[in-house]
Amino acid sequence: MARIRVYGDLRSGNCYKVWWILNQNGLDYKWIDVDVLAGQTKRAEFLTLNPNGRIPVAVFPEKGVLTESNAILNYLAEGSSLFPDDRWQRAKVMQWQFFEQYNHEPTIAVNRFIKQYLKMPSDRQQQYERNLVAGKQALEVMEHQLQQTPFLCGTHATTADIALYAYTHVAHEGGFDLSTVVSIQAWIKRIESIDGHLNMAAASAKQGSAATN
Amino acid sequence: MARIRVYGDLRSGNCYKVWWILNQNGLDYKWIDVDVLAGQTKRAEFLTLNPNGRIPVAVFPEKGVLTESNAILNYLAEGSSLFPDDRWQRAKVMQWQFFEQYNHEPTIAVNRFIKQYLKMPSDRQQQYERNLVAGKQALEVMEHQLQQTPFLCGTHATTADIALYAYTHVAHEGGFDLSTVVSIQAWIKRIESIDGHLNMAAASAKQGSAATN
Repeated sequence: MARIRVYGDLRSGNCYKVWWILNQNGLDYKWIDVDVLAGQTKRAEFLTLNPNGRIPVAVFPEKGVLTESNAILNYLAEGSSLFPDDRWQRAKVMQWQFFEQYNHEPTIAVNRFIKQYLKMPSDRQQQYERNLVAGKQALEVMEHQLQQTPFLCGTHATTADIALYAYTHVAHEGGFDLSTVVSIQAWIKRIESIDGHLNMAAASAKQGSAATN
Repeated sequence: MARIRVYGDLRSGNCYKVWWILNQNGLDYKWIDVDVLAGQTKRAEFLTLNPNGRIPVAVFPEKGVLTESNAILNYLAEGSSLFPDDRWQRAKVMQWQFFEQYNHEPTIAVNRFIKQYLKMPSDRQQQYERNLVAGKQALEVMEHQLQQTPFLCGTHATTADIALYAYTHVAHEGGFDLSTVVSIQAWIKRIESIDGHLNMAAASAKQGSAATN
């Protein structure tokens, strides 16, 4: 596979998912930092790459442009046990990833963004409060599953776990308390014991030092 | 395949996606009406089926429960050209479906719900106005692609098209004007010329009459 180019920002859980699988699977890639807060995703040059104005974006020299973190994650995980071949298992992986993008990311990641990066502006306060309730419900849906199985789709880690780990392990930065969801806590530890795993802070540190080499 | 049970409401585009593929692929199923407006998805009995309290839900007697419309759609389309085997093509299908659940559904479907079903309550007015802007942007992202290719992932219809057709062909019910997005209009006609295709209104009529037999 020719060298993949990835446009992203490692403060974003969506970008971290892609970084995680690139590193986990030892793929050759070039990481290009894009600063959302500085408006770089809305510039004309970036919009020719992704008209939706979002990161991450992956460019595969022989194939083209792929957007949407979970689509990139699954594509890069093909052939590994993280994205199982079994048709039913794949459907379950996708189920959890659609849940992530619809229920989890818009509440938990958005509250982290409002609190951590926007520093809680008053015009986002109401949305933040609503998201606290909806995000808690999303965590409870995960907790319900993780009381029954060690990983979201059963006995083994899949890209569904990576997709949901991304913003769950930093959920406290958005004001979410994980102390009552003990099965989620145990699941986080299970993911963090995967060989070669780095969490978002460690990924940022590693990528940051790589950029200076 | 043993008989599939699907819990849904054909006023919902998410449920319609599942109905569409069941009918298109001639699958044997039992449709169970669930009324979201009457709060049926939040009842204890339903929550044991889907702790996330949402429809559609598909129950496969030999496998288990599958939720999330696009996961069900893809699973049921396996083996047909609508969900291609090629790894890159599948990634592109997922890309558009994640876009649908993150950018399109929360704006276009939600505005249809606010306008058509909730009859525009004043406490949803602000959200409705915001969604008009964000939904228009989502339509422009689709238009940009459909200016280049007849279907979202290239020359053939895939489950990405069905996923996005669901709420796009009824977007006017949410207050969206499709008159300026001419490539979307042509794409809608292309999908509606697929053999055996029924739009959401025709599906409701057919399912309604089936229920009385």
